[in-house]
Amino acid sequence: MKGNSTILVTGGAGYVGSHTVVELLKNNYTVIALDNLVNCYAKDVDEKPEALKRVEQITGKKITFYNVDIRDRDALDKIFKANKIDSVIHFAALKAVGESVKVPLMYYQNNIGGSGTLFEVMGKNNVKKLVFSSSATVYGTPQFLPITENHPTGQGCTNPYGKTKYFVEEILKDLCTSDPEWKVILLRYFNPVGAHESGLIGEDPSGIPNNLMPYISQVAVGRRDKLQVFGADYPTQDGTGVRDYIHITDLAIGHLKALEKMLLPAFNSWKAYNLGTGHGYSVLDVIKAFEKASGEKVKYEIVGRREGDIAECYADASLAKLELNWTATRDIFVMCKDTWNWQQKNPKGFESA
Amino acid sequence: MKGNSTILVTGGAGYVGSHTVVELLKNNYTVIALDNLVNCYAKDVDEKPEALKRVEQITGKKITFYNVDIRDRDALDKIFKANKIDSVIHFAALKAVGESVKVPLMYYQNNIGGSGTLFEVMGKNNVKKLVFSSSATVYGTPQFLPITENHPTGQGCTNPYGKTKYFVEEILKDLCTSDPEWKVILLRYFNPVGAHESGLIGEDPSGIPNNLMPYISQVAVGRRDKLQVFGADYPTQDGTGVRDYIHITDLAIGHLKALEKMLLPAFNSWKAYNLGTGHGYSVLDVIKAFEKASGEKVKYEIVGRREGDIAECYADASLAKLELNWTATRDIFVMCKDTWNWQQKNPKGFESA
Repeated sequence: MKGNSTILVTGGAGYVGSHTVVELLKNNYTVIALDNLVNCYAKDVDEKPEALKRVEQITGKKITFYNVDIRDRDALDKIFKANKIDSVIHFAALKAVGESVKVPLMYYQNNIGGSGTLFEVMGKNNVKKLVFSSSATVYGTPQFLPITENHPTGQGCTNPYGKTKYFVEEILKDLCTSDPEWKVILLRYFNPVGAHESGLIGEDPSGIPNNLMPYISQVAVGRRDKLQVFGADYPTQDGTGVRDYIHITDLAIGHLKALEKMLLPAFNSWKAYNLGTGHGYSVLDVIKAFEKASGEKVKYEIVGRREGDIAECYADASLAKLELNWTATRDIFVMCKDTWNWQQKNPKGFESA
Repeated sequence: MKGNSTILVTGGAGYVGSHTVVELLKNNYTVIALDNLVNCYAKDVDEKPEALKRVEQITGKKITFYNVDIRDRDALDKIFKANKIDSVIHFAALKAVGESVKVPLMYYQNNIGGSGTLFEVMGKNNVKKLVFSSSATVYGTPQFLPITENHPTGQGCTNPYGKTKYFVEEILKDLCTSDPEWKVILLRYFNPVGAHESGLIGEDPSGIPNNLMPYISQVAVGRRDKLQVFGADYPTQDGTGVRDYIHITDLAIGHLKALEKMLLPAFNSWKAYNLGTGHGYSVLDVIKAFEKASGEKVKYEIVGRREGDIAECYADASLAKLELNWTATRDIFVMCKDTWNWQQKNPKGFESA
């Protein structure tokens, strides 16, 4: 099946979505992307989002795009009727942790309701192969490190965003139990950072970035004054929080490998894989690496811990290596270098275009 | 507020719903009931369901009824616009455990999606007081007995039905965190059985009953040949499974008490209460009690354990006693007697009318 099938990518214009579409096109998959444009820049609602235009520029290939919300059952159904879709990679979701605490219903209705509608329409159209964009947040507060895929899920998920990922995983597991024709891979991301090496696509957060790397990058480029480091009194090597950062291109390739695995005739039911490097870096490690990669000073101050944060979190990435033949190869220096490249070329993200 | 407010009861024509409406009307609440009729008998879609006609007969009071599905946002909104609703008691849900394993998406879309839509419409119309019909199933396999409200939830919920109850609880907790105007009581039922003492309303399962008491009752009345007892080798007093059965009228009164608690100005955010007797009865205990109450022999055979069943489950019911001033007063004999009375008067349930 490799490279001969048509993949529907929901949330295809987003950060992980767009980078994954690059890898799919490079491997001769036909891509149909859909996105509701709430979290991505498009000059006009009738135009392809800028991220996907750039993907076409990188790959020299065309993407079919639909401006559609996954909660719109009829529009989804039309897409499945109009195209011969083999599999779905499902990214579409709201993803801001802080916002999810403020407007939980919006998160539940979008992420769970929307996913449910997608799965219903898929089933009805007899498309029952899905790679789901999940998150290490389903593990809650780690009970042991490194985190394996057997770590309990759903316990101590402290915010609605994380719970939506956990709930959708459970829905998919139950779906596989109910109908053996379903094949599902759950990919649990650690901390995606970086940008495509071309500098044409990258992370484009709206407003104040929630994540460390885009924040650092905006400080380095002069868009923000300084970085706040939340807590330097954690029981870690330098007191700051340790996370498993993974280059977005490695992550995107992980989706390709998952797709290939899922398309094997022997693959059945569902399976979860961690996508991480297996290495933890502290906040100060990342700052240092970024300064080295960019040649810029990153101004920061240590402030108090942030509620809900944990000291350390990193993956046991051995199962993906063993079963998907996938390993992250880009180190923290490359992650910073590519972030900086993207930031410099697009100081205001896709809007810079 | 007691008795002067208008309560919207979703799933108002169901088993727990209809008995709760009786207690609300007796206490001078105005009741607006809605139901989509998928699990209740109505002679005609334009007519009030038979259960609610009987409730009017019992109480001598009128109920406003809407044949509406909670997933229908516009219809819900119209109900809130057309009536001055103070609080909602939310029963509407699909409830067959076995069916939920077979068609999980239908359960997730109905029970979670539908609840989400209801909560959105409530918030929009500034109605933020809710009593939610939850279940002891949220506790999964008991880690200790009796089960207190502090027992972990969501771990080891083995079927989609149980997960929908757990997920909706989590959504409501997050909603209360996001907006202090919300007041929510989660009622975790143990095993509701019995019928109104009048014999006019009772449990009316469609098809083969999933629960013990209606099954026993149908065997006693001759509608089924014999009862299968799933396992007599559990570590219990007589080897059969032990459950905390609670009379439906006690349960209904529990809703009234919860409503009164929630309407106190001092009540804030959310709180969960077990509704059970605190006593466990084995399957053989129930058979014996039923034979005594009915004067009929209940034919049964011991067969193998049923997957997913647990040995024992019963409530610590002390919190509801302390904080709601509520205790179940009807014992297993009354539960059986009232079930039998309902069964004899309505051998084919509401359809007998």
